Amino acid sequence: MSEDWQLKVAAVKAQTQARIPSALRISATLLPSRVVDLCDENTALSFLDREIIQHDATELRDRLASGKYTAVQVTEAYIKSASLAHQAVNCLTDFFPEEALERAKWLDEQFGILSGPVGPLHGVPISVKDQIDVAGKDSPAGFLSQVGKNIAEQDAHVIEILRAAGAVFYCKTTLPQAIMHLETNSYLGPTTNPYNRNTISAGGSSGGEGALIAMKGSALGIGTDIGGSIRSPASANGIYGFKPTAGILPLIGFRNHGCILGVDRIPPTQGPMGRSIRDLELYMQVVLTAEPKRRDPSLFPFSFKPNTPQPRIRIGWFIDDGVVTPTAPVRRGMEAALSALRNCSDVELVEFLPIEPEESWNVAASQHQACLGLPITNRCAASGEPVLDLSEWIVSQASPEPVTLQEYSALMLRRQELRNRVAAQWLSIGIDVLLCPAGPSVAPKLNTARYWNYASYWNVVNYPAMVMPTGLYVDRGIDGVDQSHTSFRNPHDKYNAESFDLDASEGVRVSPVF
Amino acid sequence: MSEDWQLKVAAVKAQTQARIPSALRISATLLPSRVVDLCDENTALSFLDREIIQHDATELRDRLASGKYTAVQVTEAYIKSASLAHQAVNCLTDFFPEEALERAKWLDEQFGILSGPVGPLHGVPISVKDQIDVAGKDSPAGFLSQVGKNIAEQDAHVIEILRAAGAVFYCKTTLPQAIMHLETNSYLGPTTNPYNRNTISAGGSSGGEGALIAMKGSALGIGTDIGGSIRSPASANGIYGFKPTAGILPLIGFRNHGCILGVDRIPPTQGPMGRSIRDLELYMQVVLTAEPKRRDPSLFPFSFKPNTPQPRIRIGWFIDDGVVTPTAPVRRGMEAALSALRNCSDVELVEFLPIEPEESWNVAASQHQACLGLPITNRCAASGEPVLDLSEWIVSQASPEPVTLQEYSALMLRRQELRNRVAAQWLSIGIDVLLCPAGPSVAPKLNTARYWNYASYWNVVNYPAMVMPTGLYVDRGIDGVDQSHTSFRNPHDKYNAESFDLDASEGVRVSPVF
Repeated sequence: MSEDWQLKVAAVKAQTQARIPSALRISATLLPSRVVDLCDENTALSFLDREIIQHDATELRDRLASGKYTAVQVTEAYIKSASLAHQAVNCLTDFFPEEALERAKWLDEQFGILSGPVGPLHGVPISVKDQIDVAGKDSPAGFLSQVGKNIAEQDAHVIEILRAAGAVFYCKTTLPQAIMHLETNSYLGPTTNPYNRNTISAGGSSGGEGALIAMKGSALGIGTDIGGSIRSPASANGIYGFKPTAGILPLIGFRNHGCILGVDRIPPTQGPMGRSIRDLELYMQVVLTAEPKRRDPSLFPFSFKPNTPQPRIRIGWFIDDGVVTPTAPVRRGMEAALSALRNCSDVELVEFLPIEPEESWNVAASQHQACLGLPITNRCAASGEPVLDLSEWIVSQASPEPVTLQEYSALMLRRQELRNRVAAQWLSIGIDVLLCPAGPSVAPKLNTARYWNYASYWNVVNYPAMVMPTGLYVDRGIDGVDQSHTSFRNPHDKYNAESFDLDASEGVRVSPVF
Repeated sequence: MSEDWQLKVAAVKAQTQARIPSALRISATLLPSRVVDLCDENTALSFLDREIIQHDATELRDRLASGKYTAVQVTEAYIKSASLAHQAVNCLTDFFPEEALERAKWLDEQFGILSGPVGPLHGVPISVKDQIDVAGKDSPAGFLSQVGKNIAEQDAHVIEILRAAGAVFYCKTTLPQAIMHLETNSYLGPTTNPYNRNTISAGGSSGGEGALIAMKGSALGIGTDIGGSIRSPASANGIYGFKPTAGILPLIGFRNHGCILGVDRIPPTQGPMGRSIRDLELYMQVVLTAEPKRRDPSLFPFSFKPNTPQPRIRIGWFIDDGVVTPTAPVRRGMEAALSALRNCSDVELVEFLPIEPEESWNVAASQHQACLGLPITNRCAASGEPVLDLSEWIVSQASPEPVTLQEYSALMLRRQELRNRVAAQWLSIGIDVLLCPAGPSVAPKLNTARYWNYASYWNVVNYPAMVMPTGLYVDRGIDGVDQSHTSFRNPHDKYNAESFDLDASEGVRVSPVF
């Protein structure tokens, strides 16, 4: 028997599906498990479309700026690739191709009038995680009960900045219930992994972005991260993602219905997800050059500095955080990266074991519990949708729950003291950067991402972190041979090892994090 | 009948008094009301001592660095001037001249070995507000029950930095109960104003610094500010004070027994108090150049930039915040400053009325109540000392008290929204800097500083602020004539006007704030 909430979900999903041009509608059940190359191969895209979607955002920007492509051509290509991607892996919450095309036409007209681009992102399509306000669009942010209730009156500040720079917005992307899983499951069902759309997750919480970008359904996307939500999907989908230090990029117009705001906490941040390092830098440059601090006084007074090569760098590294041993392909990816670095004469490698992983996780879990527990219960009760397993999991990880201001204050002091100790460690070992796994698995099997600490550790201490692919893939022949991890330290360790499905993960890209 | 707590206070005070060299002990009851020039005129100081204490810290530093003065000579001069100042206005909580002289001897030896200074503050004596840890020294921070319980094992980070730069520490200075009055009254009794030590307050909470520096008992001091605590005493004592944006200077090793820490709140900051603008800049340069962010990861990534002249600046101004009309000499000081600026061709003046002063005050008062109420009651009960009027006042200004995390969170969201609106106002009027009164009176009569909003508004929004003297003094002949403020807007306005004692304030310096 269909319940009321399920009928409502069906209506919501049908609405997005109806926006897909009829020529691009496909029967998802006929698709193979691996769809990462679907758009490259599909003849619903013209030759030009398929050329356009190969470029990273920087190259695309250059070609748009020089007049080699029109904004309409680029927008049409991405409307097609996003249409296919969504039908394959369920990665969109909203889709507005007609408005995007109108905007693209206007940009092309302006290009004629100005004899050049309107800004540094003229005509570049950018995908936007659901929780970020785009004028006129809804932001249910992971709760069915919020659908239709949060139509944005104006753009989030970062959308204003990107729009002024010439970007084209055409879709909003999926996130999980409460935006607090390292996967992407909500009332809309799971967003799955383009390398195995049947049993592997796209990661999360910015999983819609991760899957869409990996399938070339987006040139550049905006994610958010409070415990790994940019890095998990960047890693799971084999793309690039950057989580800046919180307090640098503006969050005005970001919704988070599942969270108590206004108190100090593990600080959330936004950041770019894309297909090259230079695209991440492009995003940071455009946003910071607009001086978001002037609109959002909570930000650090931080200016963009272009990356400059250093004569010599000292890279710390670890493969295993001492709590949960990463699965074989993650260890292999790390070893490969370290081997390559050992051959660089201007790099010095030094082991750096993260101190107090348990304390970091206890602080993070207690804080999430304090801020999330009641809101999740209430938001779900309002629609009848069930509280999902991974939502229940994240608010069950700490006890007792800090409820009063005094209890919460003690928790935040513990966080600050841990930060001071980690800073002291960093200073005493004297590293410039740290190389480590983005998570304990390359990409989680659906509904199994329960150990966040490889990622959330860097939210607790609020350090920047970037994920990049190694160029390696999970390989049954190699990774099946590594049987070294047989005795388990704790239930987390056992769960992670046992959740690894080597067969299902075959071909998934392997990504560490800087 | 003396109660136990009073006996304990007498013992604490006797301990500081005993450190004063016997040749410098004076009978305070014989001193006049005005003691601001006491050290300039007292023959307990040699001609050289009196020359030394006239310089600002920059000049002193230059003379020490060139070998014109030895560190011992300078330290001896300041031991004498601080001894007199303390006996006149009750501004020290601790005094350690012997250790200071040992340090000065070591610095002189190093000067010989290195043929130059050990650092950019070689031999400069710096006074330290009581709550800041100096290794081996106590920090009761305003509560008798804390006396002897907080002997610092190591220096606060800023003390480490200044010590490495060559500074000499010789005293710690008074602050009020809970560090939360804009005056300086505690179990030690009030710190009074060098311009009228009988009935006028030194302001607060860094009132010990303010009075000591005004009396030339210190070359440079460190204060803290969460609601006006650098600006109030800088203004009341006619010196210079700078409250940087919170999050720039390190607070590791600062004690605050009367406050819930660890939650977001009106953010406290530290900053320099001194006798010239360049001294404030010197302090910022030395501290920031040491990269405190490396030790304290909670800080902004902020580098020192020397002040550079702008071709043209746009200065906003207001005289009256719309709630409490400042007393006549404050209005006169502001008018004088504005007149001078109107004659500058590179300055544009534009009126800037602060929006929502009531909301700002409600947010600040509610937050202070939440963080302070219970700690004050408990800390006082532990010693038997009474809760002072101004302590009771600050925790009585809001209702209902926010107790749960949810209530507190709502309060902090209101703060953030106000910040956004003030930033939008600043942006739309387009000013570089704002000139306004530091407070509603030049210096409060003892036990009357009850309207914080001229200062605390800039803590709520977390903008930097500097106080400088106008060069004017309260003058019965002029300020008695101004009878324009006769109808009162509200009880705050009436209280402030009626608390102004024109006769008692005669000769007090008038200071606005930038």
